[in-house]
Amino acid sequence: MAQFINRKETLVTEAIDGLVAASGGRLARLDGYPHIRVVVRNDWDKSKVALVSGGGSGHEPSHAGFVGKGMLTAAICGDVFASPSVDAVLAGILAVTGAPGCLLIVKNYTGDRLNFGLAAERAKAFGRRVEIVIVDDDIALPDLPQARGLAGTLFVHKIAGAMAEGGADLRSIADAAHRVISATRSIGMSLDTCTIPGSPKEARIPAGMAELGLGIHGEAGVDQVLFEGACKAISAVSEKLLATMTDAPHVALLNNLGGASVLEMAVLLNELRLAPIGERIRWLIGPAAMMTSLDMRGFSVSVYPADEDAIALLGAQTDLPAWPGVSRMSEVGVIALPDGLVPITPIASAHRPTRELLTTCCELLIASETDLNALDARTGDGDTGSTLAGAARALIQAMDRLPLADHTQLYRAIGLELSQTMGGSSGVLLAIFFEAMGDAASGGFPLQRALSAGLHRLQEIGGASPGDRTMVDALAPAIDALALGIAEAAKAARQGAALTATMSKANAGRAAYINARQLTGHADPGAEAVARLFEHLAARAA
Amino acid sequence: MAQFINRKETLVTEAIDGLVAASGGRLARLDGYPHIRVVVRNDWDKSKVALVSGGGSGHEPSHAGFVGKGMLTAAICGDVFASPSVDAVLAGILAVTGAPGCLLIVKNYTGDRLNFGLAAERAKAFGRRVEIVIVDDDIALPDLPQARGLAGTLFVHKIAGAMAEGGADLRSIADAAHRVISATRSIGMSLDTCTIPGSPKEARIPAGMAELGLGIHGEAGVDQVLFEGACKAISAVSEKLLATMTDAPHVALLNNLGGASVLEMAVLLNELRLAPIGERIRWLIGPAAMMTSLDMRGFSVSVYPADEDAIALLGAQTDLPAWPGVSRMSEVGVIALPDGLVPITPIASAHRPTRELLTTCCELLIASETDLNALDARTGDGDTGSTLAGAARALIQAMDRLPLADHTQLYRAIGLELSQTMGGSSGVLLAIFFEAMGDAASGGFPLQRALSAGLHRLQEIGGASPGDRTMVDALAPAIDALALGIAEAAKAARQGAALTATMSKANAGRAAYINARQLTGHADPGAEAVARLFEHLAARAA
Repeated sequence: MAQFINRKETLVTEAIDGLVAASGGRLARLDGYPHIRVVVRNDWDKSKVALVSGGGSGHEPSHAGFVGKGMLTAAICGDVFASPSVDAVLAGILAVTGAPGCLLIVKNYTGDRLNFGLAAERAKAFGRRVEIVIVDDDIALPDLPQARGLAGTLFVHKIAGAMAEGGADLRSIADAAHRVISATRSIGMSLDTCTIPGSPKEARIPAGMAELGLGIHGEAGVDQVLFEGACKAISAVSEKLLATMTDAPHVALLNNLGGASVLEMAVLLNELRLAPIGERIRWLIGPAAMMTSLDMRGFSVSVYPADEDAIALLGAQTDLPAWPGVSRMSEVGVIALPDGLVPITPIASAHRPTRELLTTCCELLIASETDLNALDARTGDGDTGSTLAGAARALIQAMDRLPLADHTQLYRAIGLELSQTMGGSSGVLLAIFFEAMGDAASGGFPLQRALSAGLHRLQEIGGASPGDRTMVDALAPAIDALALGIAEAAKAARQGAALTATMSKANAGRAAYINARQLTGHADPGAEAVARLFEHLAARAA
Repeated sequence: MAQFINRKETLVTEAIDGLVAASGGRLARLDGYPHIRVVVRNDWDKSKVALVSGGGSGHEPSHAGFVGKGMLTAAICGDVFASPSVDAVLAGILAVTGAPGCLLIVKNYTGDRLNFGLAAERAKAFGRRVEIVIVDDDIALPDLPQARGLAGTLFVHKIAGAMAEGGADLRSIADAAHRVISATRSIGMSLDTCTIPGSPKEARIPAGMAELGLGIHGEAGVDQVLFEGACKAISAVSEKLLATMTDAPHVALLNNLGGASVLEMAVLLNELRLAPIGERIRWLIGPAAMMTSLDMRGFSVSVYPADEDAIALLGAQTDLPAWPGVSRMSEVGVIALPDGLVPITPIASAHRPTRELLTTCCELLIASETDLNALDARTGDGDTGSTLAGAARALIQAMDRLPLADHTQLYRAIGLELSQTMGGSSGVLLAIFFEAMGDAASGGFPLQRALSAGLHRLQEIGGASPGDRTMVDALAPAIDALALGIAEAAKAARQGAALTATMSKANAGRAAYINARQLTGHADPGAEAVARLFEHLAARAA
């Protein structure tokens, strides 16, 4: 699988430079490329306890994405899935640690423990106060005393970060971090392995299976289980977590391992709410990509029995885009549908001239069915005539229900009928035309203004301008000419329709996808229908 | 490719329920499932202009994820990649539109135009003031007047949203939206198609190729181009955009189409900064998944020549986690490395008793090489003896450089030597032991306390407790017994080492992966080395 990178060797420094450049000056990096890759707050005066974290890269936005006010002070970035060197860690500590000291937040992997551990000793030799906490929230291997550090690390970053920002001392922050770590539990599930840059992708998980209890470095999960959808996936995770949780209300952190879509994460969130574990989840962080494993299509859930103080710290303001904030879980609020979805049926009324006019127009369209179909067959699927004739037949059927004596209501009623009987784009477009006419007429505008309003709307929504080879090419000049009388309007419509036969390029509607040779010499069937209608109206008026 | 969903038919309602439940009461949905899927602000009093958007699902967090204070008032959600019905749109409009009216923000797709357009007419018939803007920011097909709506839609959501929140009137907001739309340009690139739920994945893009100018519904890109890394990918996109941009400073929105990793997006961001287009990009939104195409491994770049007013609106506070905020692009800030990375070489000093003691200890380890290797061969790769002997030889070589007369400095110096010459986890661990001893000694603590401090650190970082079958099993009792004299300490060390031969389970270190039968009957080589050292010291003292 190709990836949007350049070279494996420069991947981490490039990503750091992107992050730092887009921070608006909030971040900087230490001048130690390529071996020392440390992102630091650029607005840091060492007057508070510094928080330093890091480890292998590939877990973005962890950890550099969480450097900023109210979270980390510095992040030490190793190569993908490889611990940074002792020197890199030491550089980070020395760069940001002032008199209040420094807390190192380290995920429980041997390399990180050793390199951060030795760097801490070296920093102490320079007179810095340094404490270490080791995050081991993984419950996939319950019997192994060396549990791994997973996304639960974010609880520590945020709680310690908010405390440090608030001026707490190193001892209090380290104690709080220990408390969080001792009560945090995480487990993940994935449908696919991650793509490690420069390595062939491991095809480890067979189709139809998922891995439960996986790590964040591409290491195999503890179990391969049948994958039977989002509900069962959350059930499996929920069961494992519940076995380790107290009855207290918890905050859950729903983490995207990198390759799950936002839509999938929302479905998982819904299942988390509905699962047995849902009763104990009072607050939520995410869903978001916080501790990823490159592009792994998976998720993890971390839980922590947070008290109100911890929730306040988790919820404390930070402007880091990677931190999704904490929200309270609640029932799904449902609001009643508004009135108005069932269209108000207009009161039918009789008006012989209108009835006759409308009927003859409909009959004209019915009579034109074959001709218009034939025109449409040159450029489309040959059904324009049948579509219009069908709508005309339905309108004749509906005549007794229409408010024929009230033209304003009539336009709207015709629109409603067309939208229900005609179907397709053209049905909706004509409905918009007539309903916009009704809207204008209800505002007291005369017929020509109402027609203009309908045309304007038709063009706005349909996207067709004169010259685009649509019914607009006949309708627009006809409405313009209507001020000079219906005869002039009919003439203009006919000219407009004739012009469509010379247009070699269709810009709107389906004919936009047809090549020029097929188009020329044949009028657009919609324009032809409009011309026939206006000619019919002129003949009646004469 | 399996996905974390349950059924295609319930996908959208489940995702909406998850989103709404996790909003902490900020959001609600209309009671129209399954056909009417509308997410609305739950804190909305209709006193301001309402903003309604939506369209097919599959673009999450668009649009429901952007419903909230300062952005949208309601989002209408269709099926995946399918426009919502007229009734659904109408329900949304009627639910949130008060006297100030409503702006519909619609992406330029026929279905959305028609359904939102007709719903707007229907809402007007109910006396609501409704305006529509159609977003058509795609530049992939420059000659097609019906450009598609892509991630540039987010500029409209945020700018109109901030204006509406500030109390602007419908006319001003619609005008501003039109201005944004007319100057916004977007184009995307993808390495893979998206996985449409319920459909087999289309294998359209050959390995080594990328699609440029793609849509957000899985439709094919305008061009298939050779994929030659992140730099060339951004070059191609940059070139297309530059051809349409003015010289003014722009804001760029870097959008993850759903399946690119956070790391890849940071690399792309860096390339965007370095590409020719970078000079015109003064502000940045993202990188983040804002307008996705399910799980598509791709990105898009949208640009808009924002003035200071527009930037203020884009930057206006909103607590929506899906909105990443706007930041100023700048150079990469680089801070000089701190002093202290080159370890201070201690001043060598002579002290005959110390030199002799140290030398004989080293000689003991050298003499034990074969024995310790043999022990290690039972459980590991048989090199513990050689590793320790190698370190001992190096220490003898270094004797003239060591501060033998200053024990505090000496411990640190031994730690430094071991970390440089011994290598591996054990080298780092012993370095931590000696450097922590030095730290304690510099605090004025006597030898036993310094040894305890070293042991404490060794256990904390190494993760080994007594009983885990490591050197700690000999070292811990020996240090405890040291108060009673070196002879007792040696006895305790020997007992501890002997005990490791009876331990059937190793919990820390490499032997943790070995089964019980291989372990019993053989002492841990590290513990054996400690016992021999203490016995040697006791013999010397006697």
